[in-house]
Amino acid sequence: MAMQHTPLLMHRILDRGAKVAPTEEIVTATEDGARRQSYLETRARAHQLAHALKDAGIGVGDRVGTFMWNGSRHLEAYHACAGMGAVLHTLNIRLSDKDLEYIIGHAEDKIIIADADTLPLLEVLKDRMPSVEQVVVATEAGFEGWSTDLPNAVDYEDFIAGKPGVFGWPEIDENSPLGLCYTSGTTGNPKGVEYEHRSQYLHTMAQCMTDAMGLSATDTMLGIVPMFHAMGWGLPWSALMLGCKQVMPHRFMDPAKLLDLLVTEKVTVSAGVPTIWQGVKALYEANPDQYDLSSLSRLTCGGSAPPPSLIRWFWDTLGVEMIQGWGMTETSPLATLSRRVMKKSQLELSEDEQFENVAKAGQLMPGLELDIFDENFEPVPHDGESVGEILIRGPWICSEYYNNPQPEKFHEGWLITGDVGKIDPEEYLIISDRSKDLVKSGGEWISSVDLENHIVALDGIAQACVVAHPHPKWDERPVALVVLEPGKEVTAEAVINHCATAFAKWQLPDDVLYIESIPLTSTGKMDKKVVRADLDAQGYQLPDMRESAG
Amino acid sequence: MAMQHTPLLMHRILDRGAKVAPTEEIVTATEDGARRQSYLETRARAHQLAHALKDAGIGVGDRVGTFMWNGSRHLEAYHACAGMGAVLHTLNIRLSDKDLEYIIGHAEDKIIIADADTLPLLEVLKDRMPSVEQVVVATEAGFEGWSTDLPNAVDYEDFIAGKPGVFGWPEIDENSPLGLCYTSGTTGNPKGVEYEHRSQYLHTMAQCMTDAMGLSATDTMLGIVPMFHAMGWGLPWSALMLGCKQVMPHRFMDPAKLLDLLVTEKVTVSAGVPTIWQGVKALYEANPDQYDLSSLSRLTCGGSAPPPSLIRWFWDTLGVEMIQGWGMTETSPLATLSRRVMKKSQLELSEDEQFENVAKAGQLMPGLELDIFDENFEPVPHDGESVGEILIRGPWICSEYYNNPQPEKFHEGWLITGDVGKIDPEEYLIISDRSKDLVKSGGEWISSVDLENHIVALDGIAQACVVAHPHPKWDERPVALVVLEPGKEVTAEAVINHCATAFAKWQLPDDVLYIESIPLTSTGKMDKKVVRADLDAQGYQLPDMRESAG
Repeated sequence: MAMQHTPLLMHRILDRGAKVAPTEEIVTATEDGARRQSYLETRARAHQLAHALKDAGIGVGDRVGTFMWNGSRHLEAYHACAGMGAVLHTLNIRLSDKDLEYIIGHAEDKIIIADADTLPLLEVLKDRMPSVEQVVVATEAGFEGWSTDLPNAVDYEDFIAGKPGVFGWPEIDENSPLGLCYTSGTTGNPKGVEYEHRSQYLHTMAQCMTDAMGLSATDTMLGIVPMFHAMGWGLPWSALMLGCKQVMPHRFMDPAKLLDLLVTEKVTVSAGVPTIWQGVKALYEANPDQYDLSSLSRLTCGGSAPPPSLIRWFWDTLGVEMIQGWGMTETSPLATLSRRVMKKSQLELSEDEQFENVAKAGQLMPGLELDIFDENFEPVPHDGESVGEILIRGPWICSEYYNNPQPEKFHEGWLITGDVGKIDPEEYLIISDRSKDLVKSGGEWISSVDLENHIVALDGIAQACVVAHPHPKWDERPVALVVLEPGKEVTAEAVINHCATAFAKWQLPDDVLYIESIPLTSTGKMDKKVVRADLDAQGYQLPDMRESAG
Repeated sequence: MAMQHTPLLMHRILDRGAKVAPTEEIVTATEDGARRQSYLETRARAHQLAHALKDAGIGVGDRVGTFMWNGSRHLEAYHACAGMGAVLHTLNIRLSDKDLEYIIGHAEDKIIIADADTLPLLEVLKDRMPSVEQVVVATEAGFEGWSTDLPNAVDYEDFIAGKPGVFGWPEIDENSPLGLCYTSGTTGNPKGVEYEHRSQYLHTMAQCMTDAMGLSATDTMLGIVPMFHAMGWGLPWSALMLGCKQVMPHRFMDPAKLLDLLVTEKVTVSAGVPTIWQGVKALYEANPDQYDLSSLSRLTCGGSAPPPSLIRWFWDTLGVEMIQGWGMTETSPLATLSRRVMKKSQLELSEDEQFENVAKAGQLMPGLELDIFDENFEPVPHDGESVGEILIRGPWICSEYYNNPQPEKFHEGWLITGDVGKIDPEEYLIISDRSKDLVKSGGEWISSVDLENHIVALDGIAQACVVAHPHPKWDERPVALVVLEPGKEVTAEAVINHCATAFAKWQLPDDVLYIESIPLTSTGKMDKKVVRADLDAQGYQLPDMRESAG
C-alpha cells in the first residue's frame, strides 16, 4: 500500500457543507412563506436524528423509510441514515396503497419518517406494514395538531430532543448499502435499487464537475425533483458536500409557489421534470412582468426529454440554460448530460446548432460506459441514424435489484436500460423512446418522442402525447393526443401537415385526438400506460378500422 | 452486490477525451512555433506506445522512466503506462546525477523515455543505471540527428511504428501502482511517492469540480508545471478525461515563450509556480501593449505561496484570477485551494476582503481531512492565530514511501506534511512555513513566508527570501535577502521600517542583504538550503555577532 485506501463513505463528504458554510441556509417552503435553518443546525440535527434512530433500534444496514416532501427534515434523514450506515428507503408518496404495502414489506422498513400532511395516505396501510415498529411524524406549520391511529407514532422533534449533536459515524465497508428506491415497473411488482456508499460518493463527485451541472458553493439550489425519486437526482448529497444554499418546496409544487421561491430566494440552479417547467413557463407567460428571474442561470431537466421549444423558450426569454439530463433510478441517476456548449469546438457553432445539441440526451459522464446494441447484443454504429437498445455500465450503475436480482435486465455486466436510442458521430446519445413506448409499424420503429417534440412546437399546442394503437396489418400505428393552449384552435389536418414537414408519410399519426390534460405517472412523466388503457376503455378505433367497420 | 463495483482504473477516463473531442489539439511548443496533433492521433499513438513497451518486455507493475519536458510524447507515455498497468516514473531532469542515479536504481526503471535534448544529462549516468535495458529517444525539430553512447537507444517514432492503434487495457486491481515520483528531501536520499489508479482517479474527479480549478472541456490549458512534478499536478489526467485543448511548453520555459503561447493559443487556464508568474509579470510590464491576454481567465499557482501583491496584480491588470493551491508530492498534489469567491457568503465581501482569502492556502478539497496539531499531536484551535503542524489524510494521500516506508512521517494514518500553519474560523488553511524554514527565535516561531510576502510588496523589491541564521542567545534570527527591481534602490532601513508596520519588533529581520538572484530548487521554489549554505560559506555573521566581535 502506497496511498491511503480511505473508504468512500458518504459521511466524509456530507459533514463538509456545515464546516465550510455554517451559516448558509436550508429554506423550506411553508404555507405563507419559508422556514429557515443554517447548515450548522441542520448538521447537528442530523447527528441528533442518528442518535434517536440508534436508540430506537436502527443499526447498520437497517431500513428507515421516509414518506416525505422535499424539506429540511427529509435532508436530515438523508444525512443521518448515510452517516450511521442505515439504509434510507425513500417512499414515493404518489404510489398506490398496493404498491406501498409491497415495497414497505419487501424492504422490511423498521421505522418510517412521515410528513404530518401525508399521514392519511399512510394510515390506509395501518395493519399492512408488519415490519414497521415506529412512525416518526415531521410537523410543519398548520399540522401541529396531528393525530393518527398508526401505532407508536412520535413527533420528530420529540424523537430527536435532547440527543447529542455529534454522532461518531461508524467506519463500514464502502460498498455498504446507503439508500433504497423502488422503480414502478410496467409489469410485476416494483423493483428496488439499492444504492451504496461508494456508488453515491462517486456520483456526487461527478455531479459537481464543471462539465456536469457545474454546481458550486456559490449556487442557490431549488431541487424540485422529489427526494423520493432516485435520491432526488443526487442533489441533496451534492448540496450537503458543497454547502450551497438549498431551497426546498415541500408540498407546494404548484407553479405559482415555485416561481415565488425562484424569485424571492434568488435561486441560481433548479432541477425538475419537463412538466414542471411547462407549468412555470405558462404562468410566467401569463404574467410576464411579475417575476424577476435574473438570478436564475440554469435548470436541469430530466425524467423525460424536454421539448426543444421549451429549452429554447427559457433561453430566449430568460437567458436561462436548460441542461438536459438522462438517467434512471438504476443509474443513480446521472448518466448523460447536454449543455449548450460542452466542448471547445461547439463555441464556434451558431446558437441554433448549439440548441440542437441540448435537445439530445447528451454526453456520457466520465467513468461510465454506454453503447447501443441490436437484439443479438451486437453493437450498432454511431452514425446518428441506427437505433439500438441502450446498455450502460460503471461504478454508479445498478448490478441487480434488491432481493430480486432479475438477471434478464442485465447482460454481461451491463444494465439493459429499456430505452432505445441513437449515438451520433459526436458521441451524443439521442433517446428515441422507452422501448415499450416505441410504435412498431410494418417492421419499423416510430419514435413517439420525436413526434411529440415536433407537435408541441406548433403554435396553439400546449402538450402532445403519442401512443401506439394496435393495427391488424401494421401491428401498431401512432395516435396523437394533444392539449390545446387556452383559447386556441388547431385542426387535426394542421397537426398532420406540420408533422409531414419532418416525418415520412408512414410515420405520421393516423389520428389526432383532443384532450383536457395528459395523465402523469407518480414521477411526473406522461403515463402512456393509462393513456392507452383509456383509449381501450373508450373502445377507440383507428380511422382505418372505423372505415372498414363502416 | 447491488451496484457495480467497477474498478477505478485510469484507462476508463483517459480514453474519453479523444472520444468526445477527437479533433481537439495537443500543441507542443517548438523553437519557431508549435507542433500540433489531435486527441484522436494522441490516443492512437498512446495505444501504439503501450504495444511497443509491452513488446520490449514491460508488464503490469514494471517501471518506465520518463526524462522529458511537457510535450505530446510525454502525455502519450502517461496515457500508455496508465492504460497498460505499468508504472510511470517521472524523472526530474533538474536533479543532480547523484540523485538521478539513486532514484533510477531504487525504482529499477527498465526503460527510460528521454527527450533528445536531455540526452547529455542522462549520458553522465551511462554505466550507473544497471536496471535500464533500453532508452527511447523522443525527438523534436532540431534534434533529428541525435546520437548517444547510451546502450540500446532507439528513436521513439521507430519504437512505436507499425504497432496496433488499439491496446486492450488490462483489468487490474484499482489499488495497483500507476506512477512514481521522488521528492528531493532535505536530508537523506530522495523518497518515492507511488501513486495508484484509485488515488489518481479520485484526484482527477476532484480537480474537475467547479469549486476546484473549474476545468472544462471548453478550456485551453497551458500546464507549465513540469510533468515530472507530482504528475504535473494531475493536469494531464484531467485534460485527457475532459478533452480540452492542451498547450505544452516543452523546453521553452522562458517568460517570452510562455507569454507567446498564452497569447497565440488563446490559453484560458494555466498552472505554474509563483516564480514563473513573476517572470511573466515582469515581461508583460516591460511591454504592456504587446500581449493580448483577453482569453486568459485563471492561473493556478502552487508549489509555494504566491505573494498577495502578485495575485492582486494579475487581477487588477489583466482581470485574471489567480487560484492558490496547496499540496505536495505526497498529496497527489491537490489538497487545498483558494479562489476569490468560494462560497455564497463571500459574494458580499469587498474585493479587498476577497483577495485576503486568495492569499490563504484555502479550503480543503472534498473527501480529505486536515488538521493542525501541537508537538503531542493534540489538535490546535481553529482561531486563525494558533500555529500547528499540518497533518492530512484521505484517498489521494500517501500512506508510505516506495520501498522505504519512513513510519516517522506518518501518525495514526495521517501524513505529517512538514508544513506548519493556522486554520481560521472560516476553515481556511494558512501556511506559516515549511517547518524547516520557520525561524525559531526565543522560543517563538517567526514565519519566513509572511516576512517575504510583506517585503516583496514594497516598491522597488522584485523578490525576497528570509532565512534563519543561528544566534547564540535566541537560537535563530531572521535575515532577509532581497533582489531589487532593475534601476531601483531600497535601503535596508526602508525594508525594516516597512516590516515594522506589520510585525512585532522581535520578528523583524536582523539584517537585509542584497543579491542578484535567489537560487531555486529543481521544482522552482526558493532553495533556502542553498541560501543558508551560501551564507555559511561566506562566513556571514549577524550584526549582533559582528558588534560583539568588534
